Amino acid sequence: MSERNIRIEPIDRRAVEDQEVEIVERKGIGHPDSICDGVAESVAGALAREYIDRVGEVLHFNTDETQLVAGEAAPAFGGGEVVDPIYLLIVGRATKRYEGQMIPTETIALRAAREYLEETIPQLEYGEDIVVDVKLGEGSGDLQEVFGEDDELEGAVGVPMANDTSFGVGHAPLTETERIVLEAERRLNGEYASTHPELGPDVKIMGKREGEQIDVTVAAAMVDEYVADIEEYADAVESVRDFVAEVAREHTDRDVDVHVNTADDYEEGSIYLTVTGTSAEQGDDGSVGRGNRANGLITPNRSMSMEATSGKNPVNHIGKIYNLLSTSIAESVVDDVDGIRDLRVRLLSQIGRPIDRPHVADVHVVTDEGVSLEDVETDVEVIVDRELANVTEITRQVIDGELTTF
Amino acid sequence: MSERNIRIEPIDRRAVEDQEVEIVERKGIGHPDSICDGVAESVAGALAREYIDRVGEVLHFNTDETQLVAGEAAPAFGGGEVVDPIYLLIVGRATKRYEGQMIPTETIALRAAREYLEETIPQLEYGEDIVVDVKLGEGSGDLQEVFGEDDELEGAVGVPMANDTSFGVGHAPLTETERIVLEAERRLNGEYASTHPELGPDVKIMGKREGEQIDVTVAAAMVDEYVADIEEYADAVESVRDFVAEVAREHTDRDVDVHVNTADDYEEGSIYLTVTGTSAEQGDDGSVGRGNRANGLITPNRSMSMEATSGKNPVNHIGKIYNLLSTSIAESVVDDVDGIRDLRVRLLSQIGRPIDRPHVADVHVVTDEGVSLEDVETDVEVIVDRELANVTEITRQVIDGELTTF
Amino acid sequence: MSERNIRIEPIDRRAVEDQEVEIVERKGIGHPDSICDGVAESVAGALAREYIDRVGEVLHFNTDETQLVAGEAAPAFGGGEVVDPIYLLIVGRATKRYEGQMIPTETIALRAAREYLEETIPQLEYGEDIVVDVKLGEGSGDLQEVFGEDDELEGAVGVPMANDTSFGVGHAPLTETERIVLEAERRLNGEYASTHPELGPDVKIMGKREGEQIDVTVAAAMVDEYVADIEEYADAVESVRDFVAEVAREHTDRDVDVHVNTADDYEEGSIYLTVTGTSAEQGDDGSVGRGNRANGLITPNRSMSMEATSGKNPVNHIGKIYNLLSTSIAESVVDDVDGIRDLRVRLLSQIGRPIDRPHVADVHVVTDEGVSLEDVETDVEVIVDRELANVTEITRQVIDGELTTF
Amino acid sequence: MSERNIRIEPIDRRAVEDQEVEIVERKGIGHPDSICDGVAESVAGALAREYIDRVGEVLHFNTDETQLVAGEAAPAFGGGEVVDPIYLLIVGRATKRYEGQMIPTETIALRAAREYLEETIPQLEYGEDIVVDVKLGEGSGDLQEVFGEDDELEGAVGVPMANDTSFGVGHAPLTETERIVLEAERRLNGEYASTHPELGPDVKIMGKREGEQIDVTVAAAMVDEYVADIEEYADAVESVRDFVAEVAREHTDRDVDVHVNTADDYEEGSIYLTVTGTSAEQGDDGSVGRGNRANGLITPNRSMSMEATSGKNPVNHIGKIYNLLSTSIAESVVDDVDGIRDLRVRLLSQIGRPIDRPHVADVHVVTDEGVSLEDVETDVEVIVDRELANVTEITRQVIDGELTTF
Repeated sequence: MSERNIRIEPIDRRAVEDQEVEIVERKGIGHPDSICDGVAESVAGALAREYIDRVGEVLHFNTDETQLVAGEAAPAFGGGEVVDPIYLLIVGRATKRYEGQMIPTETIALRAAREYLEETIPQLEYGEDIVVDVKLGEGSGDLQEVFGEDDELEGAVGVPMANDTSFGVGHAPLTETERIVLEAERRLNGEYASTHPELGPDVKIMGKREGEQIDVTVAAAMVDEYVADIEEYADAVESVRDFVAEVAREHTDRDVDVHVNTADDYEEGSIYLTVTGTSAEQGDDGSVGRGNRANGLITPNRSMSMEATSGKNPVNHIGKIYNLLSTSIAESVVDDVDGIRDLRVRLLSQIGRPIDRPHVADVHVVTDEGVSLEDVETDVEVIVDRELANVTEITRQVIDGELTTF
Repeated sequence: MSERNIRIEPIDRRAVEDQEVEIVERKGIGHPDSICDGVAESVAGALAREYIDRVGEVLHFNTDETQLVAGEAAPAFGGGEVVDPIYLLIVGRATKRYEGQMIPTETIALRAAREYLEETIPQLEYGEDIVVDVKLGEGSGDLQEVFGEDDELEGAVGVPMANDTSFGVGHAPLTETERIVLEAERRLNGEYASTHPELGPDVKIMGKREGEQIDVTVAAAMVDEYVADIEEYADAVESVRDFVAEVAREHTDRDVDVHVNTADDYEEGSIYLTVTGTSAEQGDDGSVGRGNRANGLITPNRSMSMEATSGKNPVNHIGKIYNLLSTSIAESVVDDVDGIRDLRVRLLSQIGRPIDRPHVADVHVVTDEGVSLEDVETDVEVIVDRELANVTEITRQVIDGELTTF
Repeated sequence: MSERNIRIEPIDRRAVEDQEVEIVERKGIGHPDSICDGVAESVAGALAREYIDRVGEVLHFNTDETQLVAGEAAPAFGGGEVVDPIYLLIVGRATKRYEGQMIPTETIALRAAREYLEETIPQLEYGEDIVVDVKLGEGSGDLQEVFGEDDELEGAVGVPMANDTSFGVGHAPLTETERIVLEAERRLNGEYASTHPELGPDVKIMGKREGEQIDVTVAAAMVDEYVADIEEYADAVESVRDFVAEVAREHTDRDVDVHVNTADDYEEGSIYLTVTGTSAEQGDDGSVGRGNRANGLITPNRSMSMEATSGKNPVNHIGKIYNLLSTSIAESVVDDVDGIRDLRVRLLSQIGRPIDRPHVADVHVVTDEGVSLEDVETDVEVIVDRELANVTEITRQVIDGELTTF
Repeated sequence: MSERNIRIEPIDRRAVEDQEVEIVERKGIGHPDSICDGVAESVAGALAREYIDRVGEVLHFNTDETQLVAGEAAPAFGGGEVVDPIYLLIVGRATKRYEGQMIPTETIALRAAREYLEETIPQLEYGEDIVVDVKLGEGSGDLQEVFGEDDELEGAVGVPMANDTSFGVGHAPLTETERIVLEAERRLNGEYASTHPELGPDVKIMGKREGEQIDVTVAAAMVDEYVADIEEYADAVESVRDFVAEVAREHTDRDVDVHVNTADDYEEGSIYLTVTGTSAEQGDDGSVGRGNRANGLITPNRSMSMEATSGKNPVNHIGKIYNLLSTSIAESVVDDVDGIRDLRVRLLSQIGRPIDRPHVADVHVVTDEGVSLEDVETDVEVIVDRELANVTEITRQVIDGELTTF
């Protein structure tokens, strides 16, 4: 038996896949809230890597607040322009002085934001269409020397203590609707966008399942430079619809209806056309932690943590670590153990305990028909125990940019 | 039967009161996230009232983004000082021109913020300890004339259309733990603070119940001006503990342990002492929608909406309205119908439908032992139907400041 | 003979009073540039006094940059309102840490700005009609311990070294036109405004003399709250005209024409009406050092220093000290020595020399008819020498707010 | 005789070249005040050109306020880094809407600032080492249609009316000391810097002449990336000294001493080393109008206008136009007429008169020995008259970036 306080129980509800009504949402990477999440997380990663490079360990920082103030734009077929720039304020705390060394935290933050924005929203001219400002306080004077170099990443010796009483929750497997929503956005912003430059990164997808009927509603910002006229716009919308329908068919046998840019009114010339591919250019503000949870989705049918994961320090912020870890555990269990229909992992920390020993690790399971909890219990526990032991692997992955947080 | 699509079903989980582990949190009114919620909501209320006063209807606005950048302070027994001011940026959209009239949206916003802050965090010198700035864009040029004067508030005629597909969720009754957490904060910041000026408004309470044992952990910012030395500090902490324990006893027969300022280390002189009564003065940033849900609590055991309620336009923002309305419905049902142990109301909107006719109004019920769903079903439906019919009452209450959103 | 390098020579031009064309300007205390000068100088004084209070000496600071971004207003007879607030950014450097003590430089700056603004522009609601923000860097880490307590203020021992090669220039006596311009603004903003609340503090006066004809042009911002209609406005303008004409008559026998608000066009309803009494509310930006020189005037007929005096550190900023000192010397000489028609004092510093020993102290004199330079030379030198010896008295007066810098 | 009110008189002082003490200063293009002047003027030029492109005429704008808040840097031999970014706020008014068209004034401003900074201070990474923000109000609603297309640039028909009573002053020829100071900076930042990348653009030069002795003091920011150690630094300083001495020899036969970076203290390691080549990275704030006058110099021996020329609208801002025009006139006269030792041109506008007809055009002349005023009077008047007639040529040159303003 594990020394960790792992409890495995039946879940107290039906598998989400079997509930009558299911709602799922994903804000794409170009959505104003996601831009903030992405910038905050990029800044955090850059700071963590620079700290390791410069002083051998991650110093105290927290950059989980980024505020985006929308701009104003005048899109036009063939190419319009941003009229009032977007304003983005990076907010947080970071250690600027360490043993006589100055760490240029604000320039690191700006560079990270720039690189992230230039890659993610290439139509947005950094410093012209968007003004990025930064206010990083120094936090408390205490240096929190919580995290060392490589060797410590692997041993229990290097496991930090929880700095708070906090809570993380993860789920697996995703339902069909969830997979459709998540995959559709990722593939639209990946393979599809690479050959369809008219599709901007601000793609918002809502999936609603009632019984066996799935409705997928997509709001897709089109980039005016690549859309010559209303016919091309209509084609672009139709093409997105087809693509999403195809993605959906890979994940479900249920009936799927796909709706794209349903608020358009061609008569009135009211369409979802943008200069930069994000609604941030036209009045949609954004901030960190207001959009997708750590698994990339908003899932009102499942318990969610309010904790903003993006931008938090990956070494000692227990809320961030446990949200990512619980998701990772849930996925590992479902990958390795057959017969699980729905699984929820909740990790509750206790201040002062090593983070590989949560106060409680609750695992709630719905098994497939014909499988009992006893059949899977041991396998599940072994995996949970193993993953908890490797908790610092989460930190490493975050620092190396291998895990997404939104 | 109602023409509204109301579904009443058994809930697919145990009542939260009967679950083995329960976690509840409330960030008090002086917490940096709550400050942002409060300012955003005050600004929204002030704008709505000014619009009605000046042009007879609520014009388009949305002020649901406020960013707080923490300051730095040097608290000291008997009275310290803020060293670097807090910076607070009010963000949003508001109509500035209407039929030739200029509406001073930014000065209205600043005045509302000032009044709110001066009342809520009296130790904080506005304009000195905190710099409040504002960036209100003009939103889209379209005027959304969605809401009229008094007479329209009552009739179905005036019911606006949903502007989005969104989702609200409410619960009732609160569990014992929830009531303890909610009441303790409210009464600490009310009757208690009125006679104990040393208690600042930044009170954060976490309740954790495991079976029959409830732990209440309070982080209470003390105001240095009213604390002469470490003995008085210790007394102040003890007094808060006693008060919360007493509040708890009014709500439960379970065992309750109360912990206050557990991170203090008197030896090291590390205590929770502040100049202004909020941790925003010392490195804790904040923003809207990151804290309490519309019912004042963070309840991972219950489904929650990610939607930030504070600062949204109460006339046409369906997410705000449905979160408040579903909570109000749940409370009304439980007030009027006996035999309900736990109840969840979910309202799902559909773009273009009148908001008193949600796409679905899901009511999930756990009845008391000996009571069946059929026993209560009709009563519940009648109340839900009636409350939906009065949806614009929610708008009125928000505008008049009668409903809290966080 | 003085050991100081004092040179007394005839001036190489006619006395300004005797030149054919003379132009003089004064921006009143409510002019956007003067607001910036005034805030900068108030902040400097407050910092200096706080440093002395807290650590016994004035630490390094420089706050000679304040930027005002104009707002937008909708004035109306009987009382209009500010629509977009003015934004004022206080910029500079100030020592925040000294021997383990934190100095709250930014809150000191904000408080000083608030008090100054509330006194000077009472119609302007601080924090509502104007947002005041502050960015004070820490300057170089080196503490410049240049200035001690009271005792050092008097002895040569405490005389600091010049930190720069800089230049100050002062003139006396003022010409008739200069006195009219200076006095008219001061008395309008003093005795006149105290009984005429309709006159705002933004009074800009230009005096032009061609031979024996003086034209005084006044732009006077009227405060809408105290002006009921266009007749009252016309009366207010006329009243200002009469008052200024009267002031002028006290200073000259030349012909004087006074023009007030000449750009008004009553037909078109284009008048100089404001809500707050300053054009900063309606599109006029401002910054430090762009308006009046240290003697309160802009005098193209005389040599002027480009140096912004307001906001500079009064202990070690040689440009500030020498501009104030040269003016003070010129006035003292003219007060005490008869027969001087025009006098210019120039002080040139040399890095590293005590500031009471300028590299050169040039005194250029135009004597009255019948008086030769020899007649006054010795008296002048004695006074210059005495004033130079008392250079630190300038510092004291600035810190105590006894000297104006604009 | 000209119909313009041109007066030609002897100057009422000695030629500056013949005065005993002369002081001249120039802040190089990388000095914080010059950065602000340069950005403001670039923004103004870009706006003017865009307005002409888009609507056929220059609309109302004024961008003569730019505030630079210094950063913090950690220079190091071989290459250090900016620690806290510089903050630069572009302030002004510009027409954003014209006949239904939106003019993206703020993005135009940001682009102009970026291009200017990238060209002028190439070591400064835009958006990382410096944050550029912009606040352009809309000014008064009135459109000032003062300036048309090409054809109007040439005819008297298109001459705008003066919008203010203002004053411009120009001088020629430059004295030897003035030429040395001006040329040295231009050539250091030109030919010299092109082969000496270690010299940054922040070069400040002060010239002081006492009788026949000229002292030139240079403060030259070195760029750390190109300076390997203290020896290379010393060599770089020496090389600047030699170059400036050589420039000086081209302009004078007087004795010239050149001093470079005199505040350096090699023992203490206190040298003028920078990361970006400007002191703005290390605590030196800046703003428009605080440095060089329109002729590129600060000349306390000559009368100067306080008016900030940079950033003003070149079509209708009479202060800008008259400062540039008076300088241009003075230079033309001296180029074409022999026998002039010193000449000052003053132009005084009168509201409502065409700007080619100043209220007074004062020309004060010191002739060479043996030349009388009568000898040159007619030639001078002809040139002044011709230049005044071509006043709009100044506007054209400013818009096309052919004239410098600082």
